[in-house]
Amino acid sequence: MEKIIPSVKGTRDFYPEEMAIRSWLYQTLREVSESFGYQEYDGPFLEKIDLYAAKSGEELVKEQAFVFPDRGGDLITLRPELTPSLARMVAQRQRQLTFPLRWWSFGPFWRYERPQKGRTREFFQWNIDLIGANSPESDAELVAICVAFFKKTGLKPDQVGVFVNDRRLMDAELEKLGITNTEVKKQVFRLIDRRDKMRPEDWAAYAIEVGLSVDQFEGLKTILDNRELWKNSSDMQRFFDALQAMGADEYVHYNPQVIRGLEYYTGTVFEAYDLARDGRAILGGGHYDNLVADVGGEPLPGVGFAMGDVMISLVLQKYGCLPPLGTAPADVLVTVFDETLLIESQRAAHQFREMGLRTIGYTEVVRLPRQLKFADRMNIRFVVIIGPDEAAAGQVTVKDLARGEQFTATVLEAGELIKKMLA
Amino acid sequence: MEKIIPSVKGTRDFYPEEMAIRSWLYQTLREVSESFGYQEYDGPFLEKIDLYAAKSGEELVKEQAFVFPDRGGDLITLRPELTPSLARMVAQRQRQLTFPLRWWSFGPFWRYERPQKGRTREFFQWNIDLIGANSPESDAELVAICVAFFKKTGLKPDQVGVFVNDRRLMDAELEKLGITNTEVKKQVFRLIDRRDKMRPEDWAAYAIEVGLSVDQFEGLKTILDNRELWKNSSDMQRFFDALQAMGADEYVHYNPQVIRGLEYYTGTVFEAYDLARDGRAILGGGHYDNLVADVGGEPLPGVGFAMGDVMISLVLQKYGCLPPLGTAPADVLVTVFDETLLIESQRAAHQFREMGLRTIGYTEVVRLPRQLKFADRMNIRFVVIIGPDEAAAGQVTVKDLARGEQFTATVLEAGELIKKMLA
Repeated sequence: MEKIIPSVKGTRDFYPEEMAIRSWLYQTLREVSESFGYQEYDGPFLEKIDLYAAKSGEELVKEQAFVFPDRGGDLITLRPELTPSLARMVAQRQRQLTFPLRWWSFGPFWRYERPQKGRTREFFQWNIDLIGANSPESDAELVAICVAFFKKTGLKPDQVGVFVNDRRLMDAELEKLGITNTEVKKQVFRLIDRRDKMRPEDWAAYAIEVGLSVDQFEGLKTILDNRELWKNSSDMQRFFDALQAMGADEYVHYNPQVIRGLEYYTGTVFEAYDLARDGRAILGGGHYDNLVADVGGEPLPGVGFAMGDVMISLVLQKYGCLPPLGTAPADVLVTVFDETLLIESQRAAHQFREMGLRTIGYTEVVRLPRQLKFADRMNIRFVVIIGPDEAAAGQVTVKDLARGEQFTATVLEAGELIKKMLA
Repeated sequence: MEKIIPSVKGTRDFYPEEMAIRSWLYQTLREVSESFGYQEYDGPFLEKIDLYAAKSGEELVKEQAFVFPDRGGDLITLRPELTPSLARMVAQRQRQLTFPLRWWSFGPFWRYERPQKGRTREFFQWNIDLIGANSPESDAELVAICVAFFKKTGLKPDQVGVFVNDRRLMDAELEKLGITNTEVKKQVFRLIDRRDKMRPEDWAAYAIEVGLSVDQFEGLKTILDNRELWKNSSDMQRFFDALQAMGADEYVHYNPQVIRGLEYYTGTVFEAYDLARDGRAILGGGHYDNLVADVGGEPLPGVGFAMGDVMISLVLQKYGCLPPLGTAPADVLVTVFDETLLIESQRAAHQFREMGLRTIGYTEVVRLPRQLKFADRMNIRFVVIIGPDEAAAGQVTVKDLARGEQFTATVLEAGELIKKMLA
């Protein structure tokens, strides 16, 4: 046997078992998104590199994106994220669209990162945004959507949580410590973001490097350890009130250390984690002031988040929330008795399909035991046999492999009975 | 306003209207594929160029594929077709899989062709294959699936058709004309394929160039004009019998000029067209003898076809078979009366969602007429108002914009009534 050409590192093959999970996830995201009145959209999978150059994503594009010249010489990017395409699409029709827009999408993205647990180079991502709205209740709606998704999959509030902060609140708190310079604030945000990723002594050294005084550093630690800090913000209060009204508060926690990307978000920011802190963030998002600024277009605020398929799949698997595997591809297998009765079997299979039953009609003349073994391996419950006696009587014999029973009836009667037994 | 960065040539933006069509198509293909017991799968969107080099697709890869070096130096290809990935996946698990395999897929592909009517550089394609089966009835099943799709969308047999031929039959007919050399046969197949694309005198000159004698050329024309030629093949007879048994024969026509790609198909070949011969083929496929030969693995016969989303969408649109546009993203809009009642509205919206109604809760305090105008523009039928009187009485007022009526009830009663009116 020749050597099989391997797949590209960081990509995945979706055999039917894996594909069933991806499609179930897509369908679940669809139901959750649509229950809140969101419309599905999608951008192209290829975009010009210029589209990403403007946004915060410079690092993303320069270091992580797949970029290549096409045959015409343009620099093409395999999209590493959806927001710039969303911004372009909104800017293109800003005068025709009805705001607030509620849009969601699920599709492939690519980042040239080192593959590891919860991360592949080719992955799928749920993107959902409410655009043209600017209120704590708008922000709460997006968090409520992510909670609705957790609830729908069966994830419990002691398994996963959404951690929330408000960049404006943090800004005000830093001002109180006398940190007023915009550049220094940015660095302090980066410092906050790094706290859980560094040893305490290294983090303290980093704080000095950033230029914080001892008092400011102590003040900062007090802020970051204060889980009641949100009460200083009337917006955060409204945000949590709205979450409670939408039955989502059980899953949501205030955490002053949540910062997210530096350039893009301007208000509420949030990310979801496995509460066992097992692995990377499940999703992340926040409020922005101007979606379309960098691509041309009039200022537009909004709120949104993105969730990759890899990490959430690991979490769903860990907590036993994935759908059962190995479900049958068909309700009925119509076997072939011999060559002379082949056409009878084809006709019966067609009739079962017309009745709404998922039906495989065996297309080859092989021994019956081999066809029964096929049904067994594929978990197909009903096997239909049309031998000479059945054909002469205008009937079929149905074996119910689940109950070990069988009966003989016309195709139409058999179809109705099978439908009842499956219901 | 800055200039908006344009999208990449040959790609498409899917605004909600276009996305609704793509998702409807995907769902329709899913229903048809699953009704025949096919399982969904997918390959990676990126593959190594070597995977394509072996198969017939050399022209495809060299001239039409997007190929680029990744950061590690490997030559990566944006998949121009699915079959090589399918072959790799099957070869990888050839000993574990249960044959015959029935697999389908719907996803993105890329070809660097000149964009034109019915053709984009980034497109979606339905792929469906029956692998490990080798009979005229297997071939007929795939054609029956494509007919089932036409029927499901409402396309009629006087609008679209599937044109079928058998390469083995053509081979035998050429032998009868004394054309026995394998290389010459290949050239004659190419000649046949070109007949409708050349002027008759140019085509005749091409035939001489290929080396046909005058008698052979006349014989070939007689063959190609003989719509009854299939009767010379017992396989084709069985094929058409099976189609009739599956209620698909109305859409299927024999055509000795159908040849398809030269290297890959070995038996039945077929393609579907708008009967007005308006545009390119809707889909194409056929029987192959060895799916996995070029990627390593043991010989496996099968039959399959691929259908792009662009051409079929034009045909569906032309014949009025696309689903209606502008459907509402939500059943209910819960408006906000004023800031003090914001939370009541949020709570009611949540309750409607829990009852299974797709519900938008307005998240900003703006004048009621503006919220009503939003509902109207989005085609949302039911608008819920919670003013001070309703809130005090624990009720909501529901406006039915379709009937111009309104009523007041508790949230739960209102939800039940709305569900009844939508049913």
